[in-house]
Amino acid sequence: MELTIGVDIGGTKVAAGVVDPDGRILAAAKQETPASDPQATEDVIAELVTDLAGQYDSVSAVGIGAAGYIDAARSTVLFAPNLAWRNEPIKADIEKRVGLPVVVENDANAAAWGEVRFGAGRGHSHVVCVTLGTGVGGGIVIGEKLYRGQFGIAGEFGHMQVVPAGLRCGCGNKGCWEQYASGTALVREARELASSGSPLAVGLLQLAGGSIAGITGPLITRAAKDGDPAAIELFEDLGHWVGSGLANLTAALDPGCFVIGGGVSDAGELLLRPTREAYHRALTGRGYRPEAEIRQAELGPEAGMVGAADLARLA
Amino acid sequence: MELTIGVDIGGTKVAAGVVDPDGRILAAAKQETPASDPQATEDVIAELVTDLAGQYDSVSAVGIGAAGYIDAARSTVLFAPNLAWRNEPIKADIEKRVGLPVVVENDANAAAWGEVRFGAGRGHSHVVCVTLGTGVGGGIVIGEKLYRGQFGIAGEFGHMQVVPAGLRCGCGNKGCWEQYASGTALVREARELASSGSPLAVGLLQLAGGSIAGITGPLITRAAKDGDPAAIELFEDLGHWVGSGLANLTAALDPGCFVIGGGVSDAGELLLRPTREAYHRALTGRGYRPEAEIRQAELGPEAGMVGAADLARLA
Amino acid sequence: MELTIGVDIGGTKVAAGVVDPDGRILAAAKQETPASDPQATEDVIAELVTDLAGQYDSVSAVGIGAAGYIDAARSTVLFAPNLAWRNEPIKADIEKRVGLPVVVENDANAAAWGEVRFGAGRGHSHVVCVTLGTGVGGGIVIGEKLYRGQFGIAGEFGHMQVVPAGLRCGCGNKGCWEQYASGTALVREARELASSGSPLAVGLLQLAGGSIAGITGPLITRAAKDGDPAAIELFEDLGHWVGSGLANLTAALDPGCFVIGGGVSDAGELLLRPTREAYHRALTGRGYRPEAEIRQAELGPEAGMVGAADLARLA
Amino acid sequence: MELTIGVDIGGTKVAAGVVDPDGRILAAAKQETPASDPQATEDVIAELVTDLAGQYDSVSAVGIGAAGYIDAARSTVLFAPNLAWRNEPIKADIEKRVGLPVVVENDANAAAWGEVRFGAGRGHSHVVCVTLGTGVGGGIVIGEKLYRGQFGIAGEFGHMQVVPAGLRCGCGNKGCWEQYASGTALVREARELASSGSPLAVGLLQLAGGSIAGITGPLITRAAKDGDPAAIELFEDLGHWVGSGLANLTAALDPGCFVIGGGVSDAGELLLRPTREAYHRALTGRGYRPEAEIRQAELGPEAGMVGAADLARLA
Repeated sequence: MELTIGVDIGGTKVAAGVVDPDGRILAAAKQETPASDPQATEDVIAELVTDLAGQYDSVSAVGIGAAGYIDAARSTVLFAPNLAWRNEPIKADIEKRVGLPVVVENDANAAAWGEVRFGAGRGHSHVVCVTLGTGVGGGIVIGEKLYRGQFGIAGEFGHMQVVPAGLRCGCGNKGCWEQYASGTALVREARELASSGSPLAVGLLQLAGGSIAGITGPLITRAAKDGDPAAIELFEDLGHWVGSGLANLTAALDPGCFVIGGGVSDAGELLLRPTREAYHRALTGRGYRPEAEIRQAELGPEAGMVGAADLARLA
Repeated sequence: MELTIGVDIGGTKVAAGVVDPDGRILAAAKQETPASDPQATEDVIAELVTDLAGQYDSVSAVGIGAAGYIDAARSTVLFAPNLAWRNEPIKADIEKRVGLPVVVENDANAAAWGEVRFGAGRGHSHVVCVTLGTGVGGGIVIGEKLYRGQFGIAGEFGHMQVVPAGLRCGCGNKGCWEQYASGTALVREARELASSGSPLAVGLLQLAGGSIAGITGPLITRAAKDGDPAAIELFEDLGHWVGSGLANLTAALDPGCFVIGGGVSDAGELLLRPTREAYHRALTGRGYRPEAEIRQAELGPEAGMVGAADLARLA
Repeated sequence: MELTIGVDIGGTKVAAGVVDPDGRILAAAKQETPASDPQATEDVIAELVTDLAGQYDSVSAVGIGAAGYIDAARSTVLFAPNLAWRNEPIKADIEKRVGLPVVVENDANAAAWGEVRFGAGRGHSHVVCVTLGTGVGGGIVIGEKLYRGQFGIAGEFGHMQVVPAGLRCGCGNKGCWEQYASGTALVREARELASSGSPLAVGLLQLAGGSIAGITGPLITRAAKDGDPAAIELFEDLGHWVGSGLANLTAALDPGCFVIGGGVSDAGELLLRPTREAYHRALTGRGYRPEAEIRQAELGPEAGMVGAADLARLA
Repeated sequence: MELTIGVDIGGTKVAAGVVDPDGRILAAAKQETPASDPQATEDVIAELVTDLAGQYDSVSAVGIGAAGYIDAARSTVLFAPNLAWRNEPIKADIEKRVGLPVVVENDANAAAWGEVRFGAGRGHSHVVCVTLGTGVGGGIVIGEKLYRGQFGIAGEFGHMQVVPAGLRCGCGNKGCWEQYASGTALVREARELASSGSPLAVGLLQLAGGSIAGITGPLITRAAKDGDPAAIELFEDLGHWVGSGLANLTAALDPGCFVIGGGVSDAGELLLRPTREAYHRALTGRGYRPEAEIRQAELGPEAGMVGAADLARLA
């Protein structure tokens, strides 16, 4: 049985795993990311891969998912905001160190691929995955292929403008979708509610031990699941932005299925119900067209690792 | 040499032409569209096709482009706002009458295909065509294939929301791109400028014989080409909306080339220059990514006919 | 006891009443407005006033409230959208016919004055009245005086822009507050909800006998009072727009009290609660400043008549 | 001749001057503001006032202008963002130290009063002053009186929301006018243009010695006056936001005259021309109403000192 290794490089952790052809993770390991030092980051990747590859006979390739722009040849990281990588020839560097063929992919693309192959997107031929985390990432899978665009940078849904002259985005523009639909936006709105002194926010503040900075995404999700009305409302507001953004994507891409992943998606129906409502309201031609399914991702935080490993297998 | 017939069904005219494998129109004919009577519209199509097919030995298939939602099988018009067609089995009906295989396609998709095969999109592997007319239509061509989406309704770019709570659209929603970037928007803004009594609009009003209703798209284009400052400014404003919309499409689709067609594109650089500027300003990750070319369409109003004929040939 | 007559000229009815110095209506009468014929409208006013004045010895003056721009001398209606009046010298015309001194005032100003003298604004020195009806009108009362502006046209709050490039307003501009905060907006959103086929709207549709056009402002208010969740939500959405608009007015005017009138205000707390919430959230410097009271108007549809009569007394 | 002293407390300097009844400054002095130490700031004020008062026999009162919320009694600074003052009883404290009656006023109010009494607003009975600096401040003068609102906090025009879900403001809200119409906004847009690498910005960058951070408001103004196209365009964009905001203020307040002050107004017609254009376009009821004059302030940075001194004289 052919095995491959998937590596997911985040801003704080590098996670790697040995993955079988059915998307099962046989072994995994993690290390901190020395994010400010590109060379050290490559050292960590090489070490994790070498260790894992040593435990199995049949590891044949490595797939690396990284947040950033990857070139069309899937060899070079053009730009990775959290990793200090600029035009870094990752494929060549890592191949040299580990002696295995390497494929590099954008992390949201890798996660999308994982979900379509082994998770919530299985069986669909036109899938759009949207990852709601610190930002909003995405991936498009058409037929049996990941759609990468002319230059390898497709699926950056989080930077579509949804509010002219709107909130400033880390990318330098104003009004990007991720300023309204990400986990960061969820937490920001919750903290503002709390610092406004609204009685609505009492429950959230108590959970956070009275500290506004203690209000985090997982805490809001837990509160919503326990019925806290403010937390529920925050997910309704978020769902409004998510759903109307999906309607925009439908106008362009007409997928059969959306898969919603990322940490925020742990809220499940608390997020998906208002998302579907807003989607339906905002959809052009509603009533005259079939509508896409909107599903929660199934692979959790391992989606990127599993997807990257599978892309390496198929390369 | 294998010939096919392309038919373009607009709200006012049905145009048909015999097209060769190089996209050349050998013969063409036109009739008025009896838009409110679906049956009569089919009669007109059948008549035009039969006439043209009779003039050439080797006509092997018919492609029909129509404004509306076409099903994924390219057989049935689900909904055509200007043609009173609702779930109309056009493929079967016309095949019965003309004795040739028929393919039905959305008109903007057909035009996009024409431009990629024989016009401004030639040689590009990831092309997004945007048609600026009464509304804003579009088509996506990836590799050598028209991208149609799960249900056949991809490329409806004009109905992506760009202004929350914005101008009411004919589709029922608010703030759709076509309310800001179409020929209709151009004319609306020009007429408002004139009815505001602005001295800027004096030139346009004179050209229109003093009648606000006489200000049309072609008139504004002519005025801009003759240096009228108000007309030039109107195209700059329009280009702002067009360009920022293209930046949104790039975030999702990362094409190598945009082809801008439709009547408004006759303004050429007067529109494309401000479009490119706005595109560049609004592009996420500018400086770290290659940028798509933005080109004027080359086939003019025949793009749909030529594209439909070619799609029929390849079916 | 000195009595005066107040006249309220609406698009459909002319209402007149004899009012005492405590704001009590001693007698009243109504006729249809021949809106398209300025002369006939003056006839109706003169007839109503003559009749009422004949019933009491001590009528000393007449106040006329009309929707439109009134000049700074309170003599001439510059422009009244629903009455075909353009630069109509109402004061002089009516004085000639009825033999009493006449004062002309904008209807929302007259209503504001009525509310401050005898209704919800009593005892406050800085009051802003906002009338939510077909449009959004307003009036400002500072100290013991109606604030009219340099040209007599202050208080047109409904035409402050709240959404750039937003919904088209009857005034020709885009994004005016009254497109989001008026009774017209309430009804529009309700009908859209119903025509979208949302299950939420079932209750409203039933009340309207299944007819979307049958959904009116009073019907939505009744439904909300009976607990219909869609109607309640519609008032919450409306309150959001009303409250954030009041916060804008506070930044400029810092009043001690807002009085909310017009037909929409019949919903009482169903509207005022979300209005206050949105107001508080949107207020600049909240926490460091006292906040204005937001109160429901008390005089109902007679506010304009009572206010106009009182302005005539004080002239 | 009765003299008074005006004090203008900014975030970096305290300026004081002896002012005669015609608004002439007879003597002036300045010191740095120990902004983080409220007590030390009062020391500086007292010292400057005592020095100046010692030079003239006839100083009868002191007026202090400070950025912040001043209570309705003009005695206490409720909140001053840049001065660490919270509920500071300035009037009593300073009176005790200098032995003269003291009046405290918001700085933009004081500047407005100065312009109406001795500058660009002279002779007008309904004046709205707008100060474009770090933020956007304002003052309203009606008849012969400064309008202060119920709680003393009127005229905070910069915090009216003009873009829903728009740019984050320092006040905690989103989309405030001052995020689009202030000097800060001007500089921000210029720096973004430069950091985008646009060839348009070459001139500005050269003037700034190649440093993006070297692009300041005065530099942009100078460039615009020298014909730099990017700088001119930046003022046109700014004028668009300023003018449409003035149109909003007109809908509410209907002034006869706007006075535009603050550092940005040094650009004169480069700013005022596009401001007037946007104002005219955005004005509700244009064509049926007289329009307010829009004038450049005349007193420059001394407006606040002169206005505060005059308010002290009239108290």
